[in-house]
Amino acid sequence: MAVSIPHILVLHGPNLNLLGQREPAHYGRSTLADIDAKLSAMAKAWGWTLSSLQSNAEHQLIDAVQLAPNQGVTNIIINPAAFTHTSVALRDALSAVAVPFIEVHLSNIHAREPFRQHSYFSDIAQGVIAGLGADGYFLALEAIYRRFSRPD
Amino acid sequence: MAVSIPHILVLHGPNLNLLGQREPAHYGRSTLADIDAKLSAMAKAWGWTLSSLQSNAEHQLIDAVQLAPNQGVTNIIINPAAFTHTSVALRDALSAVAVPFIEVHLSNIHAREPFRQHSYFSDIAQGVIAGLGADGYFLALEAIYRRFSRPD
Amino acid sequence: MAVSIPHILVLHGPNLNLLGQREPAHYGRSTLADIDAKLSAMAKAWGWTLSSLQSNAEHQLIDAVQLAPNQGVTNIIINPAAFTHTSVALRDALSAVAVPFIEVHLSNIHAREPFRQHSYFSDIAQGVIAGLGADGYFLALEAIYRRFSRPD
Amino acid sequence: MAVSIPHILVLHGPNLNLLGQREPAHYGRSTLADIDAKLSAMAKAWGWTLSSLQSNAEHQLIDAVQLAPNQGVTNIIINPAAFTHTSVALRDALSAVAVPFIEVHLSNIHAREPFRQHSYFSDIAQGVIAGLGADGYFLALEAIYRRFSRPD
Amino acid sequence: MAVSIPHILVLHGPNLNLLGQREPAHYGRSTLADIDAKLSAMAKAWGWTLSSLQSNAEHQLIDAVQLAPNQGVTNIIINPAAFTHTSVALRDALSAVAVPFIEVHLSNIHAREPFRQHSYFSDIAQGVIAGLGADGYFLALEAIYRRFSRPD
Amino acid sequence: MAVSIPHILVLHGPNLNLLGQREPAHYGRSTLADIDAKLSAMAKAWGWTLSSLQSNAEHQLIDAVQLAPNQGVTNIIINPAAFTHTSVALRDALSAVAVPFIEVHLSNIHAREPFRQHSYFSDIAQGVIAGLGADGYFLALEAIYRRFSRPD
Amino acid sequence: MAVSIPHILVLHGPNLNLLGQREPAHYGRSTLADIDAKLSAMAKAWGWTLSSLQSNAEHQLIDAVQLAPNQGVTNIIINPAAFTHTSVALRDALSAVAVPFIEVHLSNIHAREPFRQHSYFSDIAQGVIAGLGADGYFLALEAIYRRFSRPD
Amino acid sequence: MAVSIPHILVLHGPNLNLLGQREPAHYGRSTLADIDAKLSAMAKAWGWTLSSLQSNAEHQLIDAVQLAPNQGVTNIIINPAAFTHTSVALRDALSAVAVPFIEVHLSNIHAREPFRQHSYFSDIAQGVIAGLGADGYFLALEAIYRRFSRPD
Amino acid sequence: MAVSIPHILVLHGPNLNLLGQREPAHYGRSTLADIDAKLSAMAKAWGWTLSSLQSNAEHQLIDAVQLAPNQGVTNIIINPAAFTHTSVALRDALSAVAVPFIEVHLSNIHAREPFRQHSYFSDIAQGVIAGLGADGYFLALEAIYRRFSRPD
Amino acid sequence: MAVSIPHILVLHGPNLNLLGQREPAHYGRSTLADIDAKLSAMAKAWGWTLSSLQSNAEHQLIDAVQLAPNQGVTNIIINPAAFTHTSVALRDALSAVAVPFIEVHLSNIHAREPFRQHSYFSDIAQGVIAGLGADGYFLALEAIYRRFSRPD
Amino acid sequence: MAVSIPHILVLHGPNLNLLGQREPAHYGRSTLADIDAKLSAMAKAWGWTLSSLQSNAEHQLIDAVQLAPNQGVTNIIINPAAFTHTSVALRDALSAVAVPFIEVHLSNIHAREPFRQHSYFSDIAQGVIAGLGADGYFLALEAIYRRFSRPD
Amino acid sequence: MAVSIPHILVLHGPNLNLLGQREPAHYGRSTLADIDAKLSAMAKAWGWTLSSLQSNAEHQLIDAVQLAPNQGVTNIIINPAAFTHTSVALRDALSAVAVPFIEVHLSNIHAREPFRQHSYFSDIAQGVIAGLGADGYFLALEAIYRRFSRPD
Repeated sequence: MAVSIPHILVLHGPNLNLLGQREPAHYGRSTLADIDAKLSAMAKAWGWTLSSLQSNAEHQLIDAVQLAPNQGVTNIIINPAAFTHTSVALRDALSAVAVPFIEVHLSNIHAREPFRQHSYFSDIAQGVIAGLGADGYFLALEAIYRRFSRPD
Repeated sequence: MAVSIPHILVLHGPNLNLLGQREPAHYGRSTLADIDAKLSAMAKAWGWTLSSLQSNAEHQLIDAVQLAPNQGVTNIIINPAAFTHTSVALRDALSAVAVPFIEVHLSNIHAREPFRQHSYFSDIAQGVIAGLGADGYFLALEAIYRRFSRPD
Repeated sequence: MAVSIPHILVLHGPNLNLLGQREPAHYGRSTLADIDAKLSAMAKAWGWTLSSLQSNAEHQLIDAVQLAPNQGVTNIIINPAAFTHTSVALRDALSAVAVPFIEVHLSNIHAREPFRQHSYFSDIAQGVIAGLGADGYFLALEAIYRRFSRPD
Repeated sequence: MAVSIPHILVLHGPNLNLLGQREPAHYGRSTLADIDAKLSAMAKAWGWTLSSLQSNAEHQLIDAVQLAPNQGVTNIIINPAAFTHTSVALRDALSAVAVPFIEVHLSNIHAREPFRQHSYFSDIAQGVIAGLGADGYFLALEAIYRRFSRPD
Repeated sequence: MAVSIPHILVLHGPNLNLLGQREPAHYGRSTLADIDAKLSAMAKAWGWTLSSLQSNAEHQLIDAVQLAPNQGVTNIIINPAAFTHTSVALRDALSAVAVPFIEVHLSNIHAREPFRQHSYFSDIAQGVIAGLGADGYFLALEAIYRRFSRPD
Repeated sequence: MAVSIPHILVLHGPNLNLLGQREPAHYGRSTLADIDAKLSAMAKAWGWTLSSLQSNAEHQLIDAVQLAPNQGVTNIIINPAAFTHTSVALRDALSAVAVPFIEVHLSNIHAREPFRQHSYFSDIAQGVIAGLGADGYFLALEAIYRRFSRPD
Repeated sequence: MAVSIPHILVLHGPNLNLLGQREPAHYGRSTLADIDAKLSAMAKAWGWTLSSLQSNAEHQLIDAVQLAPNQGVTNIIINPAAFTHTSVALRDALSAVAVPFIEVHLSNIHAREPFRQHSYFSDIAQGVIAGLGADGYFLALEAIYRRFSRPD
Repeated sequence: MAVSIPHILVLHGPNLNLLGQREPAHYGRSTLADIDAKLSAMAKAWGWTLSSLQSNAEHQLIDAVQLAPNQGVTNIIINPAAFTHTSVALRDALSAVAVPFIEVHLSNIHAREPFRQHSYFSDIAQGVIAGLGADGYFLALEAIYRRFSRPD
Repeated sequence: MAVSIPHILVLHGPNLNLLGQREPAHYGRSTLADIDAKLSAMAKAWGWTLSSLQSNAEHQLIDAVQLAPNQGVTNIIINPAAFTHTSVALRDALSAVAVPFIEVHLSNIHAREPFRQHSYFSDIAQGVIAGLGADGYFLALEAIYRRFSRPD
Repeated sequence: MAVSIPHILVLHGPNLNLLGQREPAHYGRSTLADIDAKLSAMAKAWGWTLSSLQSNAEHQLIDAVQLAPNQGVTNIIINPAAFTHTSVALRDALSAVAVPFIEVHLSNIHAREPFRQHSYFSDIAQGVIAGLGADGYFLALEAIYRRFSRPD
Repeated sequence: MAVSIPHILVLHGPNLNLLGQREPAHYGRSTLADIDAKLSAMAKAWGWTLSSLQSNAEHQLIDAVQLAPNQGVTNIIINPAAFTHTSVALRDALSAVAVPFIEVHLSNIHAREPFRQHSYFSDIAQGVIAGLGADGYFLALEAIYRRFSRPD
Repeated sequence: MAVSIPHILVLHGPNLNLLGQREPAHYGRSTLADIDAKLSAMAKAWGWTLSSLQSNAEHQLIDAVQLAPNQGVTNIIINPAAFTHTSVALRDALSAVAVPFIEVHLSNIHAREPFRQHSYFSDIAQGVIAGLGADGYFLALEAIYRRFSRPD
C-alpha cells in the first residue's frame, strides 16, 4: 500500500453524540469523546493522523467525505448509524471519493428490527464490523494498521 | 467476565482448507495453517488456549460445538463459509451450548450473490467481522482479548 | 404519572410551514401559526408549558428531540410529515431520549400512496392520530391531558 | 355541516365485551359499560344522541351499520377489533351507507403482530386513533364535536 | 401557457458538485459550473431568467422549492441525484408548490443498482430525461422552450 | 464519434398509428405523420438521413432493427409503446445489432399502471425520455445531434 | 346431465340487501327483490324450481349450502359479495356438498381494489360472470339452462 | 344506449382455431366455425350485424380492433386466449378505440396455472365470463342484447 | 398442574358437522357424534368433564371460548377448520381467556392449497396435531391426560 | 393395514442428543435415552419392534431411511430438528422409500423464528405433531397403534 | 415408441437468424444454416426426416407447431429464444398438439438477467438442454435417437 | 482446449444409489451401476479416463471436487440431486477448483415442486441437461466429447 503517512477520518452518524449518556446497558458507558480520544491515542502512537466528526446532519457527513481526498485522508472509518439504512447520498459520496472505508456498528444490527438488516454501505465497504460495541472502532483502526504494516 | 483462563475454539467451514491454494487474488496467499499458527501464537502470548478445526462436514462442526462446553471452551470464532447461508443445524448447536461466538467472513459477503446476504448466525452472534480477509480472524481474537482485559 | 408540571414539545416535519397557504381544500385554512397558537392557549389554560418547532431539516428535529430531556420536556407531539416514511434517524432520536410521544397526521395517510402506509414511528409511539386535520394536534394534547388528569 | 342534532353510533367489535375483565395491565380496568356510560354522558351534555353496540358477530355489526341511515345516525365511531384485519363485509357496509366514521383502536396495533398492520377500514375512514386506550373513544367523540362546533 | 416571461429554477442534488472532478469517464468532464453557465446562456438568449442551486442538504433544496412560487419561478429542472430514491420530503415540496418540473439524470439509472430503479419524483414530474449526460439538462430546458413557443 | 453521415432510424411501436386521431387530450393532436415529417425536416436541415417505421407487429420491428446495421443506420430512436413492457425479442434484436438507441415515451409511464413501470429496454438504452409528448422524439434527435456535434 | 327437474338455489352475500337503495349509479336501480322475481319467472317458465336467500351472516349461507343436497338442489348461483375474498368456510361448504355452482359479481371486481382481485370461489366454480350488473344472474341461470337443454 | 343497429365484432385469440379438433374432453366438440355460425344466427335473428376473426398473430387482432370504430362496430366480444396474460398491445388497442367489450374464456382460468390468474383485459372490460365453455360466447352476446333491449 | 378435576371443551369449526356424511374417502366414516362420544367416554373413564360444540358461526365459537373460564374449563381442544386461516377474532378470544388449547386438523393441511399453510392459531397453541384423522382428537385428549398425570 | 408385526424406526435429527442436558426449562428434563426407553417399552408391550437413531449427520439419517424397507420397517417417526427446514435430501429419501412417517417437533415451531415456519417434510408426512414436548413421540407411536388396531 | 419413421421439426425463435454473424465470441461462429445442415445430415444418416424453421414472428412458429401433427412430425426441437420468457401462445400451441419436444438454449440462461430465469416451456418439455452452444441442438437430436433406438 | 487426455469425474448426489430400485416408472429401470458402466465404456472407447462417485454425504462430494484438480480431472458431470437446491458448499467447491462441469437432472425439475426450480449450480455450470433420464449423463459426456473433438 501507499507509503504516505496514513490519515484516518472517523465519521459518526446521527444520535451517536448521545453515546454513554443514554441506554448504557445497551450501548456501554463510553462516551463518543472517550472513543475518539482512544482512537487518537492509537493513531498517535503509530505516527498517524486521525480526525473525527459526529453529525446528526446527513449533508455535514457528505461534506466531510467530499473534502477527505483534498485533506489527504487515506482511510475512513464510518458508523453511519441510522443513515446505514436510508442514505444513498452518503453512499454516493463515499463511492465518488473512492477512499477505502470500514463500516462499524456498535450493536448487532442483525438482531434488531428487519429494516436494520439492509445497509447501503456494506457492499462498497472494505469490510464491516458489527456488534462488538466501541471495540468495533478500535478493531477497524487496527485492521487498517495491519494492512499498512504488511509487506506487500 | 469469567476469571478462568480463556479457551478459544476456532472453527472453519467448508472449502476453507483450500485457502491460499486457489484464487489467491481473491482470498489472499495465507493458508489456513498460516492463519491457525498466527492465532495460536497470539493466544499463547496471552497465556490462553486455542484450538482450531476445519471441516467440509456439517456434522463435524456441530460435534465440535457440542463438545465445546465440556472442554472448557469460553469463546468460539467461527467462519461458517457456505454454511452461513444454509445450516440451521450448526446455528442450533451454537445456540444450544450458549458459548459466545464471533462470526468471521474473509470476503465481503455483502458484495457477492444475493443468497449470501443472509446469515443464519449473525443474529445470535456476539459480533460479525466481514471483508477484512485473514485479518478478520485476528481482529476477532483481539476483540475477545479486549473484553477479557477490561476491568468489569 | 409524574407530579411535575407537564412540558409539551410539538414538532412539525418538512413542508408543514406551507400549511394554510397551499392546497387549503386538502389541508384546511389554518396556518401552522394558528395551530401553535391554539395549542399554546390550551396548554396555558392548564398551566402547562408548550413549545413548538417546524423544520424542513431532519437534523434540526433530531437536535430538538435530543435536547428535550434536558429541557424538562415530558411529552412530545410530532407530525413527522414526509419523514414518517424515511427517517430512521429521527426515530432513533425519539427512541434514545425515551420521552413518550404521540404521532399526528393531518391527512389520512392510509388513503394515499402505498409508500405512505409505512411509518417508522408508529410502533414506538404511545398512540397515533391520523386524518382529522388540525384537530389531530388538539386531540393529541387532550390525550396527554387526560392521562395527567387521571388519578392513578 | 348539517344543522340536525348529531346522532352517534358507537360500534365495538369482537371480544371487546371482555374489556376490563381480562388482561387489565394491557387494556386497562375500564369495562365497556364504563366507556359507553362516559360516552353517553359526554353526548348528553352536548344534547346529542348516542347509542352503542358490541357484538362478536360480524353480521350484527353489519346490520347495525345498514340500519344507521334510517335511524338518523350522523356519525359512527367504530373499533372493529379483530374484524379490522379480516372483514371486507363490514367495510362494504360502511362504504355503502356512507356515514362518516372514525376508527378507534385501544392498543397500538403498529406494535403488535404483522397481520395487525393492515386495516380494511382506515383508507375509507375519516380518521384513525390508535394506542391511546379507552381515551381513543372519547377523543373520537370530541373530534366529531369539534367538527360540528366549527363555523363553516 | 402563461404569457409571463419564463423563470427557470435548476436544482442539483447531493454530490453533483463533484461533477467533472471525479469519475470523468463515467460522468463526463463538464463541471456543474460549465453546465449552469451553458444553461444560463441558453436562457439568456431567449430572454428568460434562470437560476440554479446545488446542495448536499435536503432541506436547502426543499427551501428553494418552497420559495420558488414567490420568486416567480415558472418551471423547475431537477436532478435529485441520490434523493431521487429516498426523499419523500423533496417530493412533497414539489407537489405542494405545484410548479411543473422535469426530472433529469446524468447516468442511466435503469442500468445501475436495483435501488436506483425507483424514483419518488417521476410519477409527479412533467417528464423524465435519463442517461444522456449533461445534455439531459439542455434538453430539459429545450423541452420547456418548445412548450412556451407552441401556439396554444 | 464516427465521421460518417448519421443515419437515424425512428421506430414506433403498436397503436402509435392512432396518434392524433384518438384521445387528443391525452396524447396531443399531432399525428404520427406530422411527427415523422418534422423529424425528417430536422434531419434534412443537418444533412442527415432519417427513416421511420410504425408497426403493430413485433416481428416487423425486429426485422427493421436487424436490417439497420446493413443499411448504415447509426442511431435508433424507438418508442416501443406497449412492447416496452413485454418484448424481450425486440430487446434482444437491439442488443444484438448494437446500434445505440434512445427510448422515447409520449406519456409519463411512471404515472400510469404498475405494469408500465418496467421497461425491457431502458437498461440497455443510451438514454430515456418520457412524458414530454411528441417533443420527446425531437429532443431525442437533438440529443444525437449534440453528441455528433461535440468535438471529441 | 341428470333427468330430474332442475332446482336452483340463488345465494346473495352480505350487503346485497341494499341493492337498488344505495349507490344506484354504481349498482343499478334493480332491488334484490326485482332480481329474485325475474329469476323465479325465468325458472317457472321452464318448469324449474328456484329459491333464493340473502344474508349478511356467513353461517346462514353455509347452512343453506349444507342443506342444498337434501333439498334436491341441482345447481347454485352465488354472488358471495365481500365473502368472495375472505370466506374459506363458505368455500369449504360448497366444496363439501359438491353441487355445481356459478359465481356472479355485479361490478367488475378486476377494476376495483387489489384485495378484490382474489376469489376463494373461482377455482372451484363451474364458471364466473363478472361486471355485467344484475344481468349476471340472468346469464348464469341461462348458462345452466343451456347445459340442461343440450343433448348429451 | 345508441339507437343505431348493433354491430358485433367477435375476436378469437391464438390456438382457438384448434377448437373441437384437439382435447375435446377439455374444450368440447364444437369447432370455432360452429360457434361463429351460432353467434351469427343469434345476431341475424335480432337484425344485428356480426363478424368474427381468429388469429394467431397479435398484430392482426390489433389491426381488427383499430378498424372497428370505422366499421361501425358497437361492441366487441373477445377471447384473448394466451394473449390474455401477455398482450399489453392488444389491451392498448381496445383502450384506444374505446369500443365496449366483454372478455370470454372457455375454461376456468382460475383453476389453471398461476400465470393464467392475471388478465391484461379484465380491468378495462365491461364484463368477464369464464369457465362456461362455448356458452360463454353466447351469453356474452345475450348480455349485449339485454343492454340494448333495456329501456333506458 | 392444577389439582382441580380437568374440564375439557372440544370445539369444532365450520362444516365439521358434515363429517362422515360426505367425502368419506377423504375424511373417514366417523361422524362428529361418533368422535364426541368416544372423547366423552375417554374423559369419563378418567373422571373428567368434557363438553363439545360444533358451529358454522364464528361468533358462537367465540362465545363458547369467552364462557370457558367461568365454566371451569381447564383445557380446550379446537379444530378451527376453515376459520384456521381467517379468524383473528377467534384467535383473540382464545388469547384473551388464556385457557391452554391444542389445535387439531383432520387432514394434512400442509398437503393442500397454499392458503391453508397459515394458521392464526398455531403460534399461540400449546401444540398442533394434523393429518391423523379423527385420531387427532383422541391424541390431543391423551396429550392433556399425560400432562395432568405427570408428577410435577 | 398390513398383518405383519409393525416395526417402528424412530429418527432424531441434529442436536437432539443434547436433550435434557441443556435448556431444560425449554425442552424438559427427559434425555433422549429416556424417551427412546419409554418408546421401546410401549412397543414391547404391544409385541412390536422399535429401533431408534440420533445423528447430527444428514447422510446417516438418509442411510437409515434408505435401509428401512429392507429391514422391514413399517412406520417411521421422525423429528428432523433443524433439518426440517433445510434438508431436501432427507425428504427425498423418505419419499423414495415410501414408508409412512409421522413428523414430530418438541417445541411449537410456529411460535419461533420465521424460517422455522416451513417444513420440507409436512406435505409428504402422514401427520404432524408439534409443541407437545417429548409426549409428541409417544402420541405419534400411539397414532400408529390406533391405525394398526382399527378393524379395516 | 411409435414404429413410424421419426420426423423432426426444429424451430428457432427470434433473432437466431443472426447466429454466427454477430457476437461470435458469445454465440460461436456457426450460422443457423450450418446448424440446420448438420442436423439434417444426422437425421438423413438415420433415415429420418428433419425440417427446420426460424422466425422472428410468434404466429409463424405457432402456425408451424399447429401444422406439425398433420405433417407427421413426431418430435420437436425448439429454441424459443426470447419467446422462452414471454410467449404463452407458443406454449399453448405445443401443449395443444401434444407432440413431445425438447427445449434448447445456446447460452446458459441461468447466468444471465433474472427475467431469463423463467421459461414458459420447461415444465411441459420432455427435457431441457442449456448452455452448450450449438451442440445443444445436436444433443437434443441424439436424445431423440436414443429414445427411438431403445428396445422398449 | 487442452491437449491432455480428458479425465472425467462423474458425481451423483444423495438418493441416486436407489436408482432403478424404486419408482422405476418415474426414474427408469437403469441402476446407477448400469449408468456408470455405460459411461465408462463410452470413455474407454475414446481412450479417456472416467471415474464416478455417489454419496449421500455432502462433504464426500465436496472432498471429491476438491481433489479433482490434483487428480487431473478435466471435466465434471454432476447430478447434485437434492443438493441442487440446498448446497452452497458444494457450489463453492466447484467454483473454487474451477473445473468446468455440466449439471444433469434425470427428471424435469421444472415440472416438480416450486423449491426445485432453483439450482445453486446452473449459473456457474457450462451447461444444464434436465428431464432426459439416464440419457442426460450420456449426452453430457458426449457434449464434452464434442468440445474436445472440435478443431479450435
